[in-house]
Amino acid sequence: MSKTILLDKRPEGKPTKSDFKFVNETTPEVNSGEILLKTHYISVDPYLRGRMRDVKSYIPPFELQKPIVSGIIAEVMESKNKDFSKGDFVSGTLAWKEQQVSNGDGLIKVDAERAPLSAYLGILGMTGLTAYLGLTEIGKPKKGETLLVSGAAGAVGSVVGQIGKILGLRVVGIAGSDEKVTLLKSDFGFDDAINYNTTDNMAKAIAEKCPDGVDVYFDNVGGDISDAVFYNINKKARLVICGAISVYNETELPKSISVQPFLIKNSALMQGFIIFDYVDKYPEAMKQLGQWLGEGKLTYKETIVEGFEATPQAFIDLFDGKNKGKMVVKV
Amino acid sequence: MSKTILLDKRPEGKPTKSDFKFVNETTPEVNSGEILLKTHYISVDPYLRGRMRDVKSYIPPFELQKPIVSGIIAEVMESKNKDFSKGDFVSGTLAWKEQQVSNGDGLIKVDAERAPLSAYLGILGMTGLTAYLGLTEIGKPKKGETLLVSGAAGAVGSVVGQIGKILGLRVVGIAGSDEKVTLLKSDFGFDDAINYNTTDNMAKAIAEKCPDGVDVYFDNVGGDISDAVFYNINKKARLVICGAISVYNETELPKSISVQPFLIKNSALMQGFIIFDYVDKYPEAMKQLGQWLGEGKLTYKETIVEGFEATPQAFIDLFDGKNKGKMVVKV
Repeated sequence: MSKTILLDKRPEGKPTKSDFKFVNETTPEVNSGEILLKTHYISVDPYLRGRMRDVKSYIPPFELQKPIVSGIIAEVMESKNKDFSKGDFVSGTLAWKEQQVSNGDGLIKVDAERAPLSAYLGILGMTGLTAYLGLTEIGKPKKGETLLVSGAAGAVGSVVGQIGKILGLRVVGIAGSDEKVTLLKSDFGFDDAINYNTTDNMAKAIAEKCPDGVDVYFDNVGGDISDAVFYNINKKARLVICGAISVYNETELPKSISVQPFLIKNSALMQGFIIFDYVDKYPEAMKQLGQWLGEGKLTYKETIVEGFEATPQAFIDLFDGKNKGKMVVKV
Repeated sequence: MSKTILLDKRPEGKPTKSDFKFVNETTPEVNSGEILLKTHYISVDPYLRGRMRDVKSYIPPFELQKPIVSGIIAEVMESKNKDFSKGDFVSGTLAWKEQQVSNGDGLIKVDAERAPLSAYLGILGMTGLTAYLGLTEIGKPKKGETLLVSGAAGAVGSVVGQIGKILGLRVVGIAGSDEKVTLLKSDFGFDDAINYNTTDNMAKAIAEKCPDGVDVYFDNVGGDISDAVFYNINKKARLVICGAISVYNETELPKSISVQPFLIKNSALMQGFIIFDYVDKYPEAMKQLGQWLGEGKLTYKETIVEGFEATPQAFIDLFDGKNKGKMVVKV
């Protein structure tokens, strides 16, 4: 038997466990050309919330009563496909199932000797690619500039900040607890950090921590925090819009300050992106991230939750900021 | 004697005539290296409202009890500068004075034979440059795409739309009266236009007029109209943020919908600019605009108000949309 997690209802506001349903399936049969996969690690990510809505977006919405899919590291248990052997580990966008068959399309073999398997969902996976390509392709950081990162203690944010330091920028992070603020400075090498939960006037706090203004803003959160940033951007600032976790659970799109006057006044650029826009840059980015990781210039944090059954709760916990770094479920 | 218009008070909300003060000055003396200028045409522009606030921006705020400055066409009445002769016409950023002296810095001679003098404040001046460079440098329009223009019957908007047509795009305008809607279609060659004052659901109206979605949005207004546009942008849309006339008079920055989720979903770009960012592209742009004008491919409208004393009111009238095309004062 193999457990599967289906989307049972479309969440209203913040997701709850009752939006998900567990079902038992018989172990699937492996036909010619296919492989049987056993799930080891499941990536839970804020962007999945978007796919739970029934609206057009860059990827189609999840269907009700069908399994959720996300980044997964799995082991090949049986192979009738010449490209894969029993014992291989693969990374791919797979279903939230304990076991599943695949024809191998879109799967990448990963080397369990080179890095811990979970790293391929994080720093050496979508997380690292998102951080590196968003920052370099849109943010175009220059040595000596100031980089401000929101959601800085999250999976992407913590990598963005470290890359900023490697590239010679002053890096300031925004996070939601004193513990995270300490972590950003001690473990990830941020120059400074702000706890938005204990700060009344964010615009003023940003001005103090970024005395030369903000040249690059890497935004994972949107909402009020981003509103405060606009008051501090420099001429020709680049605002990399990677995520908007603060609004993902809102049933009605919240109001923010009008950004247009700030963009005009500063000739500033604001650009949204998803990592799939930069597929052709993946190899170069992976190589650079692997090199920095090998040289000890990059570090990463994971919040690893144990047990397949804990997957929905791990996803829900993202919206309360319960993760430090990449949130992963170990099956 | 020469009349001068000073900024007497910083406007709160919409400017009023009492924010300006007229004073009489004696005709200035012309020293060596200087020229005496007589004002013929004064450009009144929405962006001047920004300079009336006492806040940091791309150009310093106007000082109280000092003259307003804007684009002006003047005639050289007397010259002690070898680069200028009596009878020359010049264009430059000059004070709201009937007569003034200048050392000639930043003044460009204009040819009264080639085009009407007022055109050098409009289609062959900042207006044309703003339209051409904003659209081409940020909008990057491609043949067959859809271009949506707000403030479409204004000075910049009406030129943007015409350039869009020359470049082979479907062009839709947004304006504030049925008369302007008719004008956009009959005189400026827009494919279609929307009167926002008689439209309840702007997002729906835009969807109807732009059935293939919006690839390039040239925004002169901001506010609610722009909010409605976000629901209709295409993947990789470019939003050229040229002006935000809807908020220039607000004492508190109004709230808009959160744009970040739209930018992420569509990997869209939003960029503010001022024409001074592109000084190195002026010659190329002027050449292209002059050529299209000569070929009859571009046309322009002016609202010419008579009399130096009418200048403050002409400026105020911009915010009620009383102009069609470029608003100019003939002294």
